[in-house]
Amino acid sequence: MITTWKFALLLLSLGFCQGRLRENYIDEFEEDVKVFAEPSKYGSLWPLPQKVQISQDSFRLSSSSFKIVDAKQSSAGASCSLLQDAYRRYFEYMFGIGKRQQQLNKGKRGVPSEVTELQVWITSPDTECDGYPSVSSDESYELTVAQPYAVLKAPKVWGALHGLETFTQLVYEDQYGAKSINSTSINDFPRFAHRGILLDTSRHFLPIKVILANLEVMAWNKINVFHWHIVDDPSFPYLSRTFPQLSLKGAFQPYTHVYTPADVKMVIEFARLRGIRVVPEFDTPGHTQSWGKGQPDLLTPCYSGSKPSGTFGPVNPILNTTYDFMAQFFKEVSTVFPDAYVHLGGDEVDFSCWKSNPDIQKFMEQQGFGQDYKKLESFYIQRLLDIVTTTSKGYMIWQEVFDNGVKLKPDTVVHVWIGSGSNEEMSRVTEAGFTTILSAPWYLDYISYGQDWQRYYKLKPDTLIHVWKGNQEQYQNEMAKVTSSGYKTLLSTPWYLNRISYGQDWRGHYKADPQDFTGTEAQKKLVIGGEACLWGEYVDATNLTPRLWPRASAVAERLWSAKDVTDINDAYNRLSAHRCRMVDRGIPAEPLFYGFCPHEYKGI
Amino acid sequence: MITTWKFALLLLSLGFCQGRLRENYIDEFEEDVKVFAEPSKYGSLWPLPQKVQISQDSFRLSSSSFKIVDAKQSSAGASCSLLQDAYRRYFEYMFGIGKRQQQLNKGKRGVPSEVTELQVWITSPDTECDGYPSVSSDESYELTVAQPYAVLKAPKVWGALHGLETFTQLVYEDQYGAKSINSTSINDFPRFAHRGILLDTSRHFLPIKVILANLEVMAWNKINVFHWHIVDDPSFPYLSRTFPQLSLKGAFQPYTHVYTPADVKMVIEFARLRGIRVVPEFDTPGHTQSWGKGQPDLLTPCYSGSKPSGTFGPVNPILNTTYDFMAQFFKEVSTVFPDAYVHLGGDEVDFSCWKSNPDIQKFMEQQGFGQDYKKLESFYIQRLLDIVTTTSKGYMIWQEVFDNGVKLKPDTVVHVWIGSGSNEEMSRVTEAGFTTILSAPWYLDYISYGQDWQRYYKLKPDTLIHVWKGNQEQYQNEMAKVTSSGYKTLLSTPWYLNRISYGQDWRGHYKADPQDFTGTEAQKKLVIGGEACLWGEYVDATNLTPRLWPRASAVAERLWSAKDVTDINDAYNRLSAHRCRMVDRGIPAEPLFYGFCPHEYKGI
Repeated sequence: MITTWKFALLLLSLGFCQGRLRENYIDEFEEDVKVFAEPSKYGSLWPLPQKVQISQDSFRLSSSSFKIVDAKQSSAGASCSLLQDAYRRYFEYMFGIGKRQQQLNKGKRGVPSEVTELQVWITSPDTECDGYPSVSSDESYELTVAQPYAVLKAPKVWGALHGLETFTQLVYEDQYGAKSINSTSINDFPRFAHRGILLDTSRHFLPIKVILANLEVMAWNKINVFHWHIVDDPSFPYLSRTFPQLSLKGAFQPYTHVYTPADVKMVIEFARLRGIRVVPEFDTPGHTQSWGKGQPDLLTPCYSGSKPSGTFGPVNPILNTTYDFMAQFFKEVSTVFPDAYVHLGGDEVDFSCWKSNPDIQKFMEQQGFGQDYKKLESFYIQRLLDIVTTTSKGYMIWQEVFDNGVKLKPDTVVHVWIGSGSNEEMSRVTEAGFTTILSAPWYLDYISYGQDWQRYYKLKPDTLIHVWKGNQEQYQNEMAKVTSSGYKTLLSTPWYLNRISYGQDWRGHYKADPQDFTGTEAQKKLVIGGEACLWGEYVDATNLTPRLWPRASAVAERLWSAKDVTDINDAYNRLSAHRCRMVDRGIPAEPLFYGFCPHEYKGI
Repeated sequence: MITTWKFALLLLSLGFCQGRLRENYIDEFEEDVKVFAEPSKYGSLWPLPQKVQISQDSFRLSSSSFKIVDAKQSSAGASCSLLQDAYRRYFEYMFGIGKRQQQLNKGKRGVPSEVTELQVWITSPDTECDGYPSVSSDESYELTVAQPYAVLKAPKVWGALHGLETFTQLVYEDQYGAKSINSTSINDFPRFAHRGILLDTSRHFLPIKVILANLEVMAWNKINVFHWHIVDDPSFPYLSRTFPQLSLKGAFQPYTHVYTPADVKMVIEFARLRGIRVVPEFDTPGHTQSWGKGQPDLLTPCYSGSKPSGTFGPVNPILNTTYDFMAQFFKEVSTVFPDAYVHLGGDEVDFSCWKSNPDIQKFMEQQGFGQDYKKLESFYIQRLLDIVTTTSKGYMIWQEVFDNGVKLKPDTVVHVWIGSGSNEEMSRVTEAGFTTILSAPWYLDYISYGQDWQRYYKLKPDTLIHVWKGNQEQYQNEMAKVTSSGYKTLLSTPWYLNRISYGQDWRGHYKADPQDFTGTEAQKKLVIGGEACLWGEYVDATNLTPRLWPRASAVAERLWSAKDVTDINDAYNRLSAHRCRMVDRGIPAEPLFYGFCPHEYKGI
């Protein structure tokens, strides 16, 4: 019944608006929408595959007989440890550790209702088993769940990894707790090639185990890029072999709060085994305070009048030593990080220090830059890009570099992050022929919990009070109260239906689409994906994981699934189940809304 | 230098405003303010004691010789297991487990620079060791740290518990990691008697171990009331002996997601041992959907036209069976929970269901209530209060009950929670002679992270764009960009200095004061404290603890320390250290801002 459903949606929206208050629509909720996610016809699949057919035929899976094996025809075999590791990992997700029970009746093995094998068939002669994933990796796969064998076909190992995740997402427990799976046919591939998460290890150091745990979760969400914002103003935890003093002086703590070459290697390999690229960011010329501690003369001395103030600004762009340093440093970076791209930053350069420095002023004059410090910034970036080009790496840069007219290689990826005007920026960047990724709507460090502005500020007599919450009676009462107190009032409550729900900002993240800008089909094709960013000001090991998940999962589906997968209610149902699965696998993914999981989090 | 310091403050404020963006003031930060908290002259004391003198004389503490003992003159002895347990607990906080090392040179014991004993001296003949804390408990203590003995004097065990916490907060590690403490003299007592935290176990079930862990942290913060919002619309996890069907039908899961009598007893005893009262809330007549599942006819049947719609509203106030049930139920509650108070709720009653019900309409007519459903609500509450009075309990109620003119006992505590007009409400409540507690500014489920409104909404051509962030160059650039795009603009950036910092909402919580309303001294005295509320829509075991701490700590200091303890920078320094101490003790308390702790969190 369309009408009822619309009504339900309306209540849902209202109810979530109510999220700031303790909501009191539970009766309608319970009856019509079920805050407890209803089963989706797609079960708990997340992100939703491109093509999926699930039938009603159900099979069993037994921990004592089920196997994940290489298909006979597969071009990958026992020597492909990437796959062998993945088989073990996914077996454990399905059946846990040490639960492999003796079967009482061996004769029962292979009874018609049981799926006993998942055969993994790599179809391409070059499996890429020992390679690194890249922006052009084939991540597609086909999965057929039938009796007695399920078959997972993929050209490369990357698709097989995704297919294994999808297979385990199809497994559910029946009412007796028996592992079950339905006859299913899936044909899947990503909508975008670049599906990333930025973590910031400069504002707070993240222990390796926290990074690894989150790489694991990225794989569950088919995220394939870990954008490692490894250094920044507050600290320099990257231990450079060439310039060890950078972390010795610039890390929060030079022994415990650094990433050694061995650590970095481990992160890269752990990620590779899960089909995840590691793209490091070494942001210059701004955001480099911590670099200056271990590398004298790298940063610009700021002046107070005619004398150095003792503080430092961005990288000093007028010294040759700067470029010598960068050449050596990025040569090392290019060997340590195997990915074809390095992110060079280039955002938020503050010109005040450059302006204060008489040597810089002189240089500006010599170069004929006038007072346009953007030209100086571009001068620096241009030379840096030339340096990095000699290392045979491609580069990603924040949008300012493009905005300032720096000459970029055709394969440059422009990273759009500024919230205001991001659609227009995407148009401009792609019109100029550059590939681009979007992060503007996906700054996960912003949390949209309802803050009642009335709460914090004293009101002047002429204040106009905007009434926005409550049911009809409540907002009418509120308006009566407001006017009887002598204030003017304005009503919005009944018209909040399209507004992003407070405390459920995954909905806003989910609705954003990187191709929602004005441009040609060719321009749209230049959008290769996006990244969710979790900057580190307010997160460390104590709270990073629940703040990232399941909020980043919304971005993951937007970047993987078909453009028309936009049913927010189906998404709520599947994401609730997906979140519970993450919890079941041991990760403190936070709740979407009230309710519970079949297997709750066991930590504190 | 006053000028420099002011300048620093200005930058700090600006910098925190910048929190939404990646801030780029690090140079000034680093030089002038230190984002890494500077040592306060009060060390890591939190909440700050009323009177404290710390000298420069430093003593050592050795795990092999240090003891916490009953003073000879103490009226408490070995039989007071509350204190004996606390001694063990606090010894472990100071020295860890299994670290009690053999001393190489026994002759060194008691050398002049060592404090070897903390003597705990209960001065009152009635120690209250086996009693329960109450709103009138004496929580004061005096602490003298000298060589070779430190002495903690307190009239009752409650003050001794606080003093033990304070003593361990004075202990620090010197550069070699040696445990040290300075000669100190402290005279301490709370500003307010009621210092609470509300946790909601209905919207998400909280495992007992999560509750216990947070009770532990409450004690570290001298919080003395656990307001247990145990049931509500979504679920009824309280296992009632008298009405077991309430949780059998109303809990999320009747076996795993309930609090058994043994659980409740354990929570109460665990809290008692830490000087914490457990005040349960059984909120009626609204917020009772989950009650209706196990108690037929308790809730009002809603009507759609002339027929019952199948949904239910608040408690049915017109049936005698309702009051019979409540009498039995609250009789049980009064025996299960030893505290002198029970919280009866009474908030957010939605009248629409009552209005729809013809029996209710008839009753309204008979009673002469006209269309004023507040009168019906009051009718119900009045009878409920009479019932609860017969159990010899005092009651707390949400402010609506007072607003609606229900006749209240003189010892009723009115709980003010509505953000708008809370100061005026405090005036009215105290003018009427009632004691009150404040929660309005302390709804910790609201998070004020910067949400860039420009990010989410498409702009109409006549939009006025309000520029609020960035340094001077940035906001000027932004304004140029805005105007060149044809929009009107408005500037606020330089004038945000007094605004609560994004992502640092503890600052807002810290600034609120329950006595900041217009009223006489006598009225002010009726304010007995406040509560931080963490409603459960978006928190469960995965994220509750880091969301609660250290944000609730800000409230804890406001309610304990002297009114004039308002130096936000000193608070930042001490709270940063206090947060690191909570992390060191194993609790995932989230960071205030970037930086690190000497002992970081070990979990994921």
